[in-house]
Amino acid sequence: MAGSEAAPGIADIQAAAARLAGHAVATPLLSSDLLDRELGCRLFLKAEPLQRTGSFKFRGAWNRLNLIADSDRPRGVIAYSSGNHAQGVALAARLKGVAATIVMPADAPAIKLANTRALGAEVRLYDRARESREEIGDKLMAETGATLIRPYDDAGVIAGQGTIGLELAAQLRVAGLAPDLVACPHGGGGLIAGLSLALEARPPAAEIWAVEPADFDRFGRSVRAGERRAIAPGGQTFCDALMAPMPGRLTFQVNRRTLAGAVAVSDAETAAAMRAAWRHFKLVVEPGGAVALAAALSAKLDLTGRTVVVVASGGNVDPALYAKVLAAEM
Amino acid sequence: MAGSEAAPGIADIQAAAARLAGHAVATPLLSSDLLDRELGCRLFLKAEPLQRTGSFKFRGAWNRLNLIADSDRPRGVIAYSSGNHAQGVALAARLKGVAATIVMPADAPAIKLANTRALGAEVRLYDRARESREEIGDKLMAETGATLIRPYDDAGVIAGQGTIGLELAAQLRVAGLAPDLVACPHGGGGLIAGLSLALEARPPAAEIWAVEPADFDRFGRSVRAGERRAIAPGGQTFCDALMAPMPGRLTFQVNRRTLAGAVAVSDAETAAAMRAAWRHFKLVVEPGGAVALAAALSAKLDLTGRTVVVVASGGNVDPALYAKVLAAEM
Repeated sequence: MAGSEAAPGIADIQAAAARLAGHAVATPLLSSDLLDRELGCRLFLKAEPLQRTGSFKFRGAWNRLNLIADSDRPRGVIAYSSGNHAQGVALAARLKGVAATIVMPADAPAIKLANTRALGAEVRLYDRARESREEIGDKLMAETGATLIRPYDDAGVIAGQGTIGLELAAQLRVAGLAPDLVACPHGGGGLIAGLSLALEARPPAAEIWAVEPADFDRFGRSVRAGERRAIAPGGQTFCDALMAPMPGRLTFQVNRRTLAGAVAVSDAETAAAMRAAWRHFKLVVEPGGAVALAAALSAKLDLTGRTVVVVASGGNVDPALYAKVLAAEM
Repeated sequence: MAGSEAAPGIADIQAAAARLAGHAVATPLLSSDLLDRELGCRLFLKAEPLQRTGSFKFRGAWNRLNLIADSDRPRGVIAYSSGNHAQGVALAARLKGVAATIVMPADAPAIKLANTRALGAEVRLYDRARESREEIGDKLMAETGATLIRPYDDAGVIAGQGTIGLELAAQLRVAGLAPDLVACPHGGGGLIAGLSLALEARPPAAEIWAVEPADFDRFGRSVRAGERRAIAPGGQTFCDALMAPMPGRLTFQVNRRTLAGAVAVSDAETAAAMRAAWRHFKLVVEPGGAVALAAALSAKLDLTGRTVVVVASGGNVDPALYAKVLAAEM
C-alpha cells in the first residue's frame, strides 16, 4: 500500500479487518424499542465508546502501526491529537512494544490526557492558539526518525477506520437487514471516508451523511465550494474531537464522491443526543461522538420507515461536563 | 416444566435460550485495558444495561410469557416490581400481544415508571411502607384471571435469567477463556440462581459470589442461618432494584447449594463502581446493577491473575441521581 499517498481500496480495508481481529472490539449495534417507536424507524447505534480506549481511533492506529516496517519500529511513533487518536496510538504502540510520543493540546479533556499517559505514552503539550501541532509533529519526527501516525489523512489509518463499515454491514446482515442511511461524525473525515469506502463495496448502496458541529462545518463548506475549505474563524463547539479546521486531502477526495451530503448540528442538539444515548442506550457518548445521533433526533435526516445506523464515535468526556449535560445545564 | 413449583434444570435454561434467540440481546462482555492493569486480572463486565428495557429482566419475562398457555393469554399478565421487572414484562407482553398490569411502588425511579407506561402497560401504584405488593398482585389475579409473572421465585423466570450464564460462558470460550470467578447482584436471587445453574453445567466450575447492599444482606444472613431470613428492619440503600426483604424459596434452594458465598457492599462503594463503569466501560449502570463491580473494586474478592466476570444487571436510573453520583456527591 502506498502509505499516505493514495486512498485505500476495499482490499486494504479487508486486510485491516484481518489485522484487527482479536485485537479490536467488534462493537455492538445498540437499539432501543422506545426510541424506535418515537422515531418510526429502526435505528441502530454503532457503539464505538465500547471500543478499546473508548473510541474508534484504536482501529486506525492499530492498522497503521502494523504497516510500519520492522526496521523503523525501534525509532518509535509520534502522533498529534486532541485525545482519542492519542489514546488509540498509545495503546496500539504499547501492545506492539513501540515507544509513542503524543503531541496534545494543553486544553484537551483531562481524562484524555490522563488516559494517554496511563497507557504508557510520553505526552508533549502545546498551546492550541499559538502553536501548530503539525509543525511540532514534523519537527519531532525529523529529530528522532519516529514514524508520524497522522490522525486521518493516511491510507493506513483510513483503512483501519473503514473496518467499522464492514463490521456494521455484517452485523445488520445477521439480522436480515441492510442500512438505508448511515450518519457519522466528520472531524478530519477519516472515519467516514473509511466507512463509506467499505459500504460502497457492500451493496445495496446506503445514503451516508457527514455530521458536523455548526461552527466546524468544514466538510459542508468544502462540498459547497467544490474544494477543500477551512471553517470560518472564531467558531466554538464543545465537540473537542471534531475541531480539525479543514477536511484532509485524502479524506476529502474520498468523501466528496461517496457521501450524500453534510448536516450541521448545534451544541444544544448534541447535548440532547448525549442525554438520549444515556437514557435509551445506557451509553456514555462524548460530545463529538454524539453529533450523528443529534442529527437523527433533530429531524435533519429522513428516517421514517428506514434502517438507520448512527455512529457514536467515542465516549471520553470529563465527568464534570458530562454531569452538567445530564442535568440539562447545557 | 412445573411452573413455579421446582427449580429449573439445564434443559429448561437451554429451552429458554432458544426462545430468547433473536428477541433478547446477546449483551457484550466489556473489558478495559486500564482497569485490568490496575486490578491485575482479566475482568469482563456482562453488560445487561444493554439488554432490551435496560436490564436482564427481559430474559425471564420473555421466557415466562412464552410458557403461558394460549388459552390463558387473553386474560393478560400481572407483575409487581420496583421497575426493571416491570419494564421487562411490559415489553415482553407487548411483543406477544398480551395485556399487562404492573404493580409498582409509588417511589420507584421516575424513569422506570415512565418507561413501563411508554411500553404500553397499565401501572398500579402502591405505597411501599403501607401495602404489600404480593397481596395486591394476588387480589388482581383473582379478579381478572390474569397470570402473575413473579419477579424471581418462578422456574420459568429463573430459567430465562439463566440464559446469561450460557451466554457469558460461550462468549469467553470464543476467546479461549473460562470464568474463574463470577460476581452477580442478589435481590430476590433469580438472576444468580439461573446463572449458577447454567454455569454448573459448563465445567470447569467457577466460584460464584452473590453481592448485596450492606443493609439488604438477605442472602448472607440466610446462608449464615442455614435457612431463609429477612433483612434487619430499618435498613437503607439507594439500590432500589435490590430491596427484596428475603431470598425466594426456590432461589434460595438453588443458591445455598451453588454459590461460593455472599459479599456486602456499602452505597459509597456502589457509587464508586457506577463511576468506574462510566469511566472504564462507558456504560450507564444503576445502583443495584453496580454492586458486583463494587465488590470487585473494593478488594472483597480474590481477583489476582484470574478471569473474572462481574454482572452489571441494569442501567435504569434517574438522571439527577446519576449526575450526583458522577459528581461524587454520594
